[in-house]
Amino acid sequence: MNYYLGVDLGGTNIAAGVVDEDYNILAKGSMPTFTGRPTEEIIKDMFDLSKKVAEEAGIPLSKFTSWGIGMPSYVNPKNHLLVHANNLGWINLPIYDFLKKHTDLPIYIENDANCAALGETLAGAARDYNHAIMLTLGTGVGGGIILNKRIFSGCDLMGAELGHTKLVFNGINCTCGQKGCLESYCSATALIRQSQERLRNNPDSLIWDMCGRNLASIDGKMVFDASRMGDITAKNLVEQYIEYLSCGISTFVTIFRPEIIILGGGLVGAGQVLFEPLNLKIHENTFAASEIGVPRIVKAELGNDAGIIGAALLEKHTEKR
Amino acid sequence: MNYYLGVDLGGTNIAAGVVDEDYNILAKGSMPTFTGRPTEEIIKDMFDLSKKVAEEAGIPLSKFTSWGIGMPSYVNPKNHLLVHANNLGWINLPIYDFLKKHTDLPIYIENDANCAALGETLAGAARDYNHAIMLTLGTGVGGGIILNKRIFSGCDLMGAELGHTKLVFNGINCTCGQKGCLESYCSATALIRQSQERLRNNPDSLIWDMCGRNLASIDGKMVFDASRMGDITAKNLVEQYIEYLSCGISTFVTIFRPEIIILGGGLVGAGQVLFEPLNLKIHENTFAASEIGVPRIVKAELGNDAGIIGAALLEKHTEKR
Repeated sequence: MNYYLGVDLGGTNIAAGVVDEDYNILAKGSMPTFTGRPTEEIIKDMFDLSKKVAEEAGIPLSKFTSWGIGMPSYVNPKNHLLVHANNLGWINLPIYDFLKKHTDLPIYIENDANCAALGETLAGAARDYNHAIMLTLGTGVGGGIILNKRIFSGCDLMGAELGHTKLVFNGINCTCGQKGCLESYCSATALIRQSQERLRNNPDSLIWDMCGRNLASIDGKMVFDASRMGDITAKNLVEQYIEYLSCGISTFVTIFRPEIIILGGGLVGAGQVLFEPLNLKIHENTFAASEIGVPRIVKAELGNDAGIIGAALLEKHTEKR
Repeated sequence: MNYYLGVDLGGTNIAAGVVDEDYNILAKGSMPTFTGRPTEEIIKDMFDLSKKVAEEAGIPLSKFTSWGIGMPSYVNPKNHLLVHANNLGWINLPIYDFLKKHTDLPIYIENDANCAALGETLAGAARDYNHAIMLTLGTGVGGGIILNKRIFSGCDLMGAELGHTKLVFNGINCTCGQKGCLESYCSATALIRQSQERLRNNPDSLIWDMCGRNLASIDGKMVFDASRMGDITAKNLVEQYIEYLSCGISTFVTIFRPEIIILGGGLVGAGQVLFEPLNLKIHENTFAASEIGVPRIVKAELGNDAGIIGAALLEKHTEKR
């Protein structure tokens, strides 16, 4: 049996786990990232946490095949620098040099959304498929493309940024500096913004009660809950959101024709009130859907474990180029 | 030396050529397709034309490695039927059965836009690159994605329909039945439509003289020519067209990060008045362009030969899946 160490480094938490070759997590743990600290400290905590979970699993570090790390950025394959991890404040960071100080294990680094997509395709919602696309609908929209059970991250290994493809021509400003990105219409943040805008003209909506009449307290769950309860404003919001999301996904289907689409992130807790109309709309809004079908859109199954499993297994499932 | 027979079947013409393993066309020919005829007749003409060019090249049919064919559709790998060749009126056609009646050579069929992209990547504008995306701006917008010098046509081999990705959310109707497709804003047909609309309110535009005051006679060349001559209406049209096209391309760059983008089709004859501002705009309109750059957008070099070369070499350059 081969064992893999995986770390999911986020702006809020560091998670680490020991994963075996059958994708079982044998031990895992997490701790706050405390961003703003010196880079060395964060990296040391990533290693110490990895060591701790390895000890819990009773496997000596030397027995691991590799140390895989998911983080919210990309390593530029030309100069081996981490391009830009916005929420960590890291720009052009010689990340491998920092990591190698702690271990001789082979190190693999990937974008965290790609790791989650890989985890779900190995052990989660897409375990029975070879080709999947995953979108994570959270503060932003993360995207991961899996072809033949391997991460596809573009020709230069820094692409596949599905959240920053264009959805609305000449649309609203995205945090990335571009206009009309999928992320600025389909993230949880975007749904909240859309709700706040619409509630101003709809004083009778149930959402007002749910958020304690405080627009700043709205979350995605309230919108979907109110829609399920028959609230017209919420229904319209959900309908518009699904129109955006289905059009965004349709572009990826038209290009990739994956076997399955996985959605993760906070919003997918909405369940059928999201997935049922979305699966109808993707059929309606996709080129040649009647002739060649469209993939099913399903909910992610592994939660935060997806990122750990995907990071751990990078050694086996990275596209060679 | 290995030799390959290639056919490019279009709604207007059938072209065939003998290609060697160094991508030289040793002989080629073409004839009208005369659509509307019985399928058997068109297929027989494809074979007869192939046989004729083989004879011209002095190579017996039995010496060819394969017979590769580009056509405006896809073969469904599940049932081996040609899905839908609109301008030939073929739907769910058992195309291999028809072709096999004429030869025992291994037969390869691909979408014509994919073949053109492959041809340009082997022997044309992208010969020095491994990863390229090509768009053909004609009556419609064809797209081809080349990864590692092989055609990428999606997980089910029927994807990569770049012309039918969404460019304008809730946009105008496309011929495919969808709304807001890239094709309905960036084809030559679309530029002509945009010009006709704008000319109605701009009686002083030079384009009026160029088209003999007949809106139905406008073509893309007139618009670019008038722009080059300083006509304001034409300049605005070109500017708007480049805005559409750059946003469409930016989505493909954000996903694939190819090494180069190739544009083919009638419109690219415009030359620098198209390519210079387009190369600036793609930088402006693409996610993370400053951090990781954007590929250069260049003009296709091979014209119709690209489709013949790509079709001929399918045997060596099809993605195995």
